[in-house]
Amino acid sequence: MTAFTGNHILSVDQFDREAIEKVFEVAATMQPYARRQKRTTVLDGAILGNLFFEPSTRTRVSFGTAFNLLGGEVRETTGMSSSALAKGESLYDTARVLSGYSDIIAMRHPAAGSVAEFAQGSRVPVINGGDGANEHPTQALLDLYTIQREREYQGKGIDGLHIAMIGDLRYGRTVHSLSRLLSLFKNIRFTLISPKELAMPSPIIDAIENAGHQLTITEQLEGNMDADICYQTRIQEERFPSQDEANKYRGKFRLNQSIYTRHFQSNTVIMHPLPRDSRAEANELDNDLNLNPNLAIFRQTDNGVLVRMALFALTLGIEDKVAHYERDVVWFSNKSSE
Amino acid sequence: MTAFTGNHILSVDQFDREAIEKVFEVAATMQPYARRQKRTTVLDGAILGNLFFEPSTRTRVSFGTAFNLLGGEVRETTGMSSSALAKGESLYDTARVLSGYSDIIAMRHPAAGSVAEFAQGSRVPVINGGDGANEHPTQALLDLYTIQREREYQGKGIDGLHIAMIGDLRYGRTVHSLSRLLSLFKNIRFTLISPKELAMPSPIIDAIENAGHQLTITEQLEGNMDADICYQTRIQEERFPSQDEANKYRGKFRLNQSIYTRHFQSNTVIMHPLPRDSRAEANELDNDLNLNPNLAIFRQTDNGVLVRMALFALTLGIEDKVAHYERDVVWFSNKSSE
Amino acid sequence: MTAFTGNHILSVDQFDREAIEKVFEVAATMQPYARRQKRTTVLDGAILGNLFFEPSTRTRVSFGTAFNLLGGEVRETTGMSSSALAKGESLYDTARVLSGYSDIIAMRHPAAGSVAEFAQGSRVPVINGGDGANEHPTQALLDLYTIQREREYQGKGIDGLHIAMIGDLRYGRTVHSLSRLLSLFKNIRFTLISPKELAMPSPIIDAIENAGHQLTITEQLEGNMDADICYQTRIQEERFPSQDEANKYRGKFRLNQSIYTRHFQSNTVIMHPLPRDSRAEANELDNDLNLNPNLAIFRQTDNGVLVRMALFALTLGIEDKVAHYERDVVWFSNKSSE
Repeated sequence: MTAFTGNHILSVDQFDREAIEKVFEVAATMQPYARRQKRTTVLDGAILGNLFFEPSTRTRVSFGTAFNLLGGEVRETTGMSSSALAKGESLYDTARVLSGYSDIIAMRHPAAGSVAEFAQGSRVPVINGGDGANEHPTQALLDLYTIQREREYQGKGIDGLHIAMIGDLRYGRTVHSLSRLLSLFKNIRFTLISPKELAMPSPIIDAIENAGHQLTITEQLEGNMDADICYQTRIQEERFPSQDEANKYRGKFRLNQSIYTRHFQSNTVIMHPLPRDSRAEANELDNDLNLNPNLAIFRQTDNGVLVRMALFALTLGIEDKVAHYERDVVWFSNKSSE
Repeated sequence: MTAFTGNHILSVDQFDREAIEKVFEVAATMQPYARRQKRTTVLDGAILGNLFFEPSTRTRVSFGTAFNLLGGEVRETTGMSSSALAKGESLYDTARVLSGYSDIIAMRHPAAGSVAEFAQGSRVPVINGGDGANEHPTQALLDLYTIQREREYQGKGIDGLHIAMIGDLRYGRTVHSLSRLLSLFKNIRFTLISPKELAMPSPIIDAIENAGHQLTITEQLEGNMDADICYQTRIQEERFPSQDEANKYRGKFRLNQSIYTRHFQSNTVIMHPLPRDSRAEANELDNDLNLNPNLAIFRQTDNGVLVRMALFALTLGIEDKVAHYERDVVWFSNKSSE
Repeated sequence: MTAFTGNHILSVDQFDREAIEKVFEVAATMQPYARRQKRTTVLDGAILGNLFFEPSTRTRVSFGTAFNLLGGEVRETTGMSSSALAKGESLYDTARVLSGYSDIIAMRHPAAGSVAEFAQGSRVPVINGGDGANEHPTQALLDLYTIQREREYQGKGIDGLHIAMIGDLRYGRTVHSLSRLLSLFKNIRFTLISPKELAMPSPIIDAIENAGHQLTITEQLEGNMDADICYQTRIQEERFPSQDEANKYRGKFRLNQSIYTRHFQSNTVIMHPLPRDSRAEANELDNDLNLNPNLAIFRQTDNGVLVRMALFALTLGIEDKVAHYERDVVWFSNKSSE
């Protein structure tokens, strides 16, 4: 991948290390705008088509906010029943039509492959906001960007990282995509912790091993691991064959402060793709961790805005013009608090 | 309450008389913008998170419009099923995440207390847009602001007012909150008219009496009352134990021009929180009152925009900067007609 | 019709030839903005109330985009269940309230006549975005604008046109409205092709004949017609008494490249109101026509933005000020590609 301008963002497979570093470099320049230290209007007049054929409040709002923060407008659609798709319209037609109404599209859809199919009919760049069990590249990028920033605080880079991934590694697409991206870096150590039935799929395992990284597979948290990152997951109930099947594994990998102290280092960063299930029977990340400064889950969602701003800026080719359209912010803002 | 900037607006109990007067003073300065005589861009670049986990078209659009009129952008969500809340996410987490996407939040939710709970996780000010049977402070403020303005036309203030409240005084949270606010003023005379079963709850009665106001409770409209304001309500069907129970009272307190003439003065102002049920079996306010210049119901909803603009301006600390970012309006506008 | 400013757009019957030509003249000036060659902020601060009480993604987004492209903001509502209408509020009240929140309203509603009823309560101009089986004037205008532009490429005007209308001419309101508009021009030749049961209603037939146009009615595509325009329709399943009834006619008038070659000229323009049903059993316009440069269906939807921009500009009285608020576009754009 050498150029972003005018291109779709459909899969993490599009990214090489250089492209990732470019995204992160641009994301870092977005921070003053996201924190409301400055305002930019570089995309004044541009329109994002924010098409969430499958609802997802947090991802939808994050894309919309990222576009607003660059000065653009957002036209949105949520859900599918009401759409022309229900009248037998092809994704190609929908794309041809709706791409006439916007400058760039962010799209989520429940069917794997649907966003790529849609992109073929689109006359503007399409960013995949999640296509079912398939891909969610902006989540993987914001996860990796978070890792990079957390490591920076420790004076380190991504290379040489030890990451522990815990829980539903089979259906959790975020750990799949993140693993693929991490494989592009050097000397990563993966510790994969899950019941056998929810193990990481073998194509991902192969990719990790072929890239020469170190891999440990286990079914339990054991001893004190020297992991830099603990990436906890949610049981992807909606992807299991049945609710009963999902229930078997719910609550199997709870993490709270005392478990953390036992198995992790005092500066191990805790990540999770969110939402975390706070009901007693699941409790993937106990609320007592909220006081732990290594809990990075809300820094992840904040970083999502920066990464999405960067992707918009790059695909619309204005990454170097953002600061030129800068203004002061006059309202009360405490955006730097997280 | 001394400072607004950076604080939440959760309950009418936060307001003392001075705070109310500050809100109304700022609301009055918003009129040229709401009437499109001028345009302001003071909040250019700011984002409102308009989170309506319980749908309410009119309140949602009113908040959104108020924010747009100050120059800001609006990111919205409607309904709950699709939300992460359904996956067991706590309100605290939702707030931590979504508050990272906006500068201020307006929120409605069906559960009493939920907005305050949400506010604890929010990193930006939260304005309660209605939390079930509990509170709807902006409605109470717009009602009181309307009373103030209607009284102004008559050369009077809020002190010394005689208000008749009619109908479902038990479940109608607007009359509860309005009564609390009015109790902060002087020499108010309350006439409460409802079936015993739908009487005003005793904590409100106590508050009125403890503040030394005059109180009359009755079950029927009788004779010619010298009320300045007639505040009519809707049967809150959704809060009754059953539809049958609600039906008993539907249509019990119809008001039309001839009833108005019999029981009220020629300049008694008619108010209602809207929507009014125009079906024959309810008919709380007959359409023949549409010609009555004292019918203030649409002035109420217009005033709602002013009050919400004022609350945004105060919580974001820009109430003194609005005029500085003023521009001319160039398009056709007949916004001064109501 | 002589003046647009401040008036509602409810029906094609409002338009005479002069008014249509005015809309099209203004629409043509909108092209640089729609193609992102330039940006205008003439409506900066204006708010569109985009009220889709019946969902329609494409029409809703088209209206919203058109308003954004003029620099305005959009407040939206979709669906009806959650609305105050469900609590017995009259359309008049809804209009009085919601018109207080916007400068202009675009509205779709499932009930015929509802938009006109709503307009009576509105304090701002209302544009009908479709009221059930009744009217959808902006669709008719964009269809006719497309015809004008396609004819222009051939060095001709609308007068003297030969149009073939195919399929469900009974329930397809777009062909009704388009026929009424075409009747205002000179020497139009209509060829109406449908099963008897789905024939064009007689009031439309009468209007065509009374205006002195040439009319041919048939049940089959036959021989090589010298039509300039082939206007294909969708079976309006939702308006049939039953699904079985609708199924009888589904797929009866498929059009693909080989049928096109047999029955039409090499430059006959193909139109369709979209969405086209791409499922095998319907297949109104085969995908093999996508390569045919005469397929104008996506030019129609692009033109819809221009026509809606023109209607906004005219009803808000700023059609002559648009260029005055022009700026450069700085982001990547390939909007001229269709």
